[in-house]
Amino acid sequence: MEKIDHGSVISPGGFRVGHAACGIKSEGPDVALITSDTPSAAAGVFTRNRFAAAPVQWSRSHLPASDVCAVVINAGNANACTGNQGKRDVRQTADITAELMGCNAEQIVIASTGIIGHPLPMNKLESGIRSAHATLSDEQQAPRDAERAIMTTDTAPKACAVEFDAPHTTCRIGGMAKGSGMIHPNMATMLGFITTDADISPDLLQQCLRRANAVSFNRISVDGDTSTNDSVIALANGDSGDRLTSGSDELAAFQEALQWVMQHLARSIARDGEGATKLVEINVEGARTEDDADRVARAIANSPLVKCAINGEDSNWGRIVCAAGYSGADFCPDKVQLDLGSTRIFADGLPTGNDASGELSGEDVKITLDLKAGSATATMWTCDLSKEYVEINAEYHT
Amino acid sequence: MEKIDHGSVISPGGFRVGHAACGIKSEGPDVALITSDTPSAAAGVFTRNRFAAAPVQWSRSHLPASDVCAVVINAGNANACTGNQGKRDVRQTADITAELMGCNAEQIVIASTGIIGHPLPMNKLESGIRSAHATLSDEQQAPRDAERAIMTTDTAPKACAVEFDAPHTTCRIGGMAKGSGMIHPNMATMLGFITTDADISPDLLQQCLRRANAVSFNRISVDGDTSTNDSVIALANGDSGDRLTSGSDELAAFQEALQWVMQHLARSIARDGEGATKLVEINVEGARTEDDADRVARAIANSPLVKCAINGEDSNWGRIVCAAGYSGADFCPDKVQLDLGSTRIFADGLPTGNDASGELSGEDVKITLDLKAGSATATMWTCDLSKEYVEINAEYHT
Repeated sequence: MEKIDHGSVISPGGFRVGHAACGIKSEGPDVALITSDTPSAAAGVFTRNRFAAAPVQWSRSHLPASDVCAVVINAGNANACTGNQGKRDVRQTADITAELMGCNAEQIVIASTGIIGHPLPMNKLESGIRSAHATLSDEQQAPRDAERAIMTTDTAPKACAVEFDAPHTTCRIGGMAKGSGMIHPNMATMLGFITTDADISPDLLQQCLRRANAVSFNRISVDGDTSTNDSVIALANGDSGDRLTSGSDELAAFQEALQWVMQHLARSIARDGEGATKLVEINVEGARTEDDADRVARAIANSPLVKCAINGEDSNWGRIVCAAGYSGADFCPDKVQLDLGSTRIFADGLPTGNDASGELSGEDVKITLDLKAGSATATMWTCDLSKEYVEINAEYHT
Repeated sequence: MEKIDHGSVISPGGFRVGHAACGIKSEGPDVALITSDTPSAAAGVFTRNRFAAAPVQWSRSHLPASDVCAVVINAGNANACTGNQGKRDVRQTADITAELMGCNAEQIVIASTGIIGHPLPMNKLESGIRSAHATLSDEQQAPRDAERAIMTTDTAPKACAVEFDAPHTTCRIGGMAKGSGMIHPNMATMLGFITTDADISPDLLQQCLRRANAVSFNRISVDGDTSTNDSVIALANGDSGDRLTSGSDELAAFQEALQWVMQHLARSIARDGEGATKLVEINVEGARTEDDADRVARAIANSPLVKCAINGEDSNWGRIVCAAGYSGADFCPDKVQLDLGSTRIFADGLPTGNDASGELSGEDVKITLDLKAGSATATMWTCDLSKEYVEINAEYHT
């Protein structure tokens, strides 16, 4: 498997992207369109929030599917908590895009991010979709504009692509994503879009996407909040011509590459957390069960005290082991071992006294906690909690 | 039931308090002693953190009990993550106090709060306990000094007392507490001490304390973190002479009064949350089950986005309903109704557009969310999340 320089959703052949600025956001591009030259297998995973937005309800009800022609995305308005009007607006968005693409509305997937509780400005969006369609391209600059069009509080676009060997050809997977707070009614949410030229059935693609999501986008936390609009969509157009079958080595290679792309995008989101200055990787080892490993990793990732300590570059082992202690996981506190980077700061239930301040001075922080209770592991990515986070989220007014 | 002016742990007769400054904290009093003139029935509830501190392990193993003589409390050092040395130090603390009191070590209850991972400075603590014992008093000023002695990041002491009619006499309950972050390795933790002249068996006292704790100290959240040292201790010396029996009206009156005292103290802790400017009461109504009501109330109370919005005095209904949406509770989003103070801001799955900014301008904020899915309810108290919280917790260095 190899990373592709300047990789994007058009690194796999047969996809094109377009964008437009239609005034839903106060400035910059706010509509993106990803199209497939031939109808694609498509799969999706979505927020479990009960207030799932209208576009989530639409896309979820149509996926997995074998014949998706386009994904239309807008930023600036999430079309969430918009009642029946929201449902009608989603249908109209699909109709407009389908007409341009020459397909049925059901072949259009939709994702939105932005303010909630306000109806979509459909006139603006319609002109945006038409303009985006007019710019469809597979030139190098095209995805860069689309990546910016889906951003809200993000400070940088997020994209990558890889290629790996299939039996008779080379297969490619590309992706783009946005997100910085996990939920932010005015702006943020987590969206991810994956394209591939792999030849794979919709059901198998859905399985692979779900599995990769469990170890990527589902392993990041900025503030523990889950948006109404979180969506990850994958399109596979089959252009590579090598059919991936269940249980094959090629499918395993595809799964590995898909996870790499999605983890890369997920880490980019955690690093770009609102007000964040550091990407924090939390590895829990030696847990009795996977569930225990997950509880401990999430408790640490969501602890405001741990995140404040990292912001202050303080190697505060106490806050980390305490979060493990209240996570609900089963382990013996007297055996626990904690490393910050490569420095052991806690062992056998006691602090070691080693100086780990240097492990916190960079932009990447790694926490490894061994519970010594079994062999299950879990990883989470998060960021530090800064005064800027509070500023961004307290000073915003609805 | 009536509130007692300037109420404290010595409002019920037969209790005395002492304090001392022995240098465990950098300044001010740091040792408090509560004694009972006759051995008391005693009960306790403790942190569920797996890294429970040595004093928690000691006190938990001896309660409930029928013959407790004293509770000794120190601030500045939590005696947590201190291994076998910590266990020996707790034993020695009990021995020193027991000798002064003329009782056995097992009749002493111990609570500590402060930095973790450092052995207790036993020489200082011993002189502190002796000095505190020398100051034992039931004069009005005595509890005021003890209330300050147990403070860490608290900005104000927390105490109250009530009285209620028992069949043949008047019964009193008093209390004091400390806490401002839920866990803070250098300083904070949640401690509560209740005294009463009720005549009640240790097992019944334990039941009442557990029940009252579930609707008071267990219903507050500053940052969702749970300390290694959280403890609530109750002493009942029986001085009122009216034996409270299971199922009696007097026991119901006692339970009600106990809950009032503990809720008052719990709200004081939430209001004094690190960096907090507002006390936030969250009422969830119409939940399908108590568990669902609890999940929703906790999700809202622990959402950094909700807490930042309240800090910024922004009536952000979106963040509140979203937290309910990802809580895992079962309800229909189209029926949900949300009030901020007395202003309805969300109904039937849509924002009402009512202006509720005035509901956030004071020091007390009330959120009422009706899920319209059943009849279960839950209440939580929390505070807003401010830049000062991050400052306190990022700039502290271990």
